[in-house]
Amino acid sequence: MSVIFYDLAGADPKRRFSPYCWRIRMALAHKQLEVDDRPWCFTEKDAIGFSGQGLVPVIVDRGRSVHDSWEIARHLETAYPDRPSLFGGAEAPIRLIASWTERVVQPQIGRMIIADIVAVLDEKDKVYFRESREKRFGMTLETAQADRDERLPAFRQSLEPVRTVLASYPWLGGAKPNYADYAVFGAFQWARCTSPYKLLAEDDPIFAWHKRARDLFDGLAEKAPAFG
Amino acid sequence: MSVIFYDLAGADPKRRFSPYCWRIRMALAHKQLEVDDRPWCFTEKDAIGFSGQGLVPVIVDRGRSVHDSWEIARHLETAYPDRPSLFGGAEAPIRLIASWTERVVQPQIGRMIIADIVAVLDEKDKVYFRESREKRFGMTLETAQADRDERLPAFRQSLEPVRTVLASYPWLGGAKPNYADYAVFGAFQWARCTSPYKLLAEDDPIFAWHKRARDLFDGLAEKAPAFG
Repeated sequence: MSVIFYDLAGADPKRRFSPYCWRIRMALAHKQLEVDDRPWCFTEKDAIGFSGQGLVPVIVDRGRSVHDSWEIARHLETAYPDRPSLFGGAEAPIRLIASWTERVVQPQIGRMIIADIVAVLDEKDKVYFRESREKRFGMTLETAQADRDERLPAFRQSLEPVRTVLASYPWLGGAKPNYADYAVFGAFQWARCTSPYKLLAEDDPIFAWHKRARDLFDGLAEKAPAFG
Repeated sequence: MSVIFYDLAGADPKRRFSPYCWRIRMALAHKQLEVDDRPWCFTEKDAIGFSGQGLVPVIVDRGRSVHDSWEIARHLETAYPDRPSLFGGAEAPIRLIASWTERVVQPQIGRMIIADIVAVLDEKDKVYFRESREKRFGMTLETAQADRDERLPAFRQSLEPVRTVLASYPWLGGAKPNYADYAVFGAFQWARCTSPYKLLAEDDPIFAWHKRARDLFDGLAEKAPAFG
C-alpha cells in the first residue's frame, strides 16, 4: 500500500519546489516506500482540508494523515523501523540542523529567488503568492530580489558549518545520507527548481554534495524539472 | 591511569574559562575518566610544546598527546567505546552543531565579554591577550564590548535553533546529554566564568538547560569559579 503524498507543484505539475516537500520526498525514498504522488497548488486548500490545516507536505499513510515535515519524518521513522533509519540515533541534533536551515539558510535563499518563483507557479497561484509574500517583505518581490548579488557573499559565508562537516564526511549524516542531509538539501533544491540564479560556486564542496544528493534514489532529484 | 588535561586558567588557577576546554572537561566526565588536571596560561607555550602547537585543550592519554577539542572528543569516543557514547551515532551532525557554535555563537559572545575577560586573567597573560585581541578587533576591547546591549537581541535571536530542540527534548543530544550539548555549553560557560554580563533571560529555555548541564557530573560546572 503506497503513501499518499501532497507535494507543492508549479504550472508544470512535474515541477516540485517546496523545500519542506523535498525533505519528505527524499525521506520517503530513503524509507523505500511506494508513493502515490499528488501535485498540489497553494490555492487548493480544500484538497488538504482533511489534514486540519492548509500547508504541504501532507501524507496519508494507511489511512492516517500527517502534516509538518518534521512530524512526517518522525512518523516514517517510527512506522517503518525496519527500513533504513532517517535519524541514525541523532533525532535531536538533526532537529537543530533542520531548524538552522529554516531560520538561517531558507530566509536568505528566499530573498534571492522570490521573484523568480512567481514565473514557475500555476496561474491560479500567482496572485495569492505575490500578495502574501509582498506583504511579508513589505516591498515588491522584484525589489526584494534586486540586491541578491550583494547578499550572496554573506549567504555563502553562513554555510560554513556545512562545509566543516563535508571536509571530513561525505554526508551531513556521516558515512551515509540521512535526514540531516535532506533538511539542508531541500533548501537548495527549492532554489534549483525555481530559479536560474547560481547560489553556490562550482568549486564549493556544497555544490558537489548537492549533486551527489540529487543522484540518490536513481536520480530522483536530478531528473526533476529544474534550472541549471 | 588518569588522563592529563591542560586547561586554560585565570589568575585564580581554579577559574577555567576556555569554551573549547569546557567541551573537553565535560566530555572527560561523560566518559567517566579520571583527570589529572593542569591549569595553563596563554603565555605558557613551552608547557604544551610537546603537542606541536600552542593552544589548549591538550590531553595526554596513556602517553599519547591529542590536541584540538574535536580531535580529543573523537579520540575519547574511539579509545573508550565501552563508556557512555559522546556522539550517540551522530558524529557528523554534531560536528555541524560544534561548527555553528564556533562560527555563530562564540564570536557574538566574545564581542560582548572580551574586556571582562582581561580582568580574570593572570598578570602575565594580560598584555598578550589585549594586544592579540585588539589587533583582531581593530579597536580597544572596551570599545568592542561597549555596544553589547544593542547586540544582545540579535544574539538571542540567533539561538532559535537551540530553542527548537529544547521545546521537544531535554538535551541537544535527545533524552540524554552528549557532545552536542557540551559543544554549545562551552560557549555559555566561557561567558559565565569570565563576565557578569547576562547573556540569557532567566525565562529562556536555554537558561534552564545550561543550569541542568552545570549540575551534571556532581555539579562539575556549577561548582567552578564563575559569575552569577
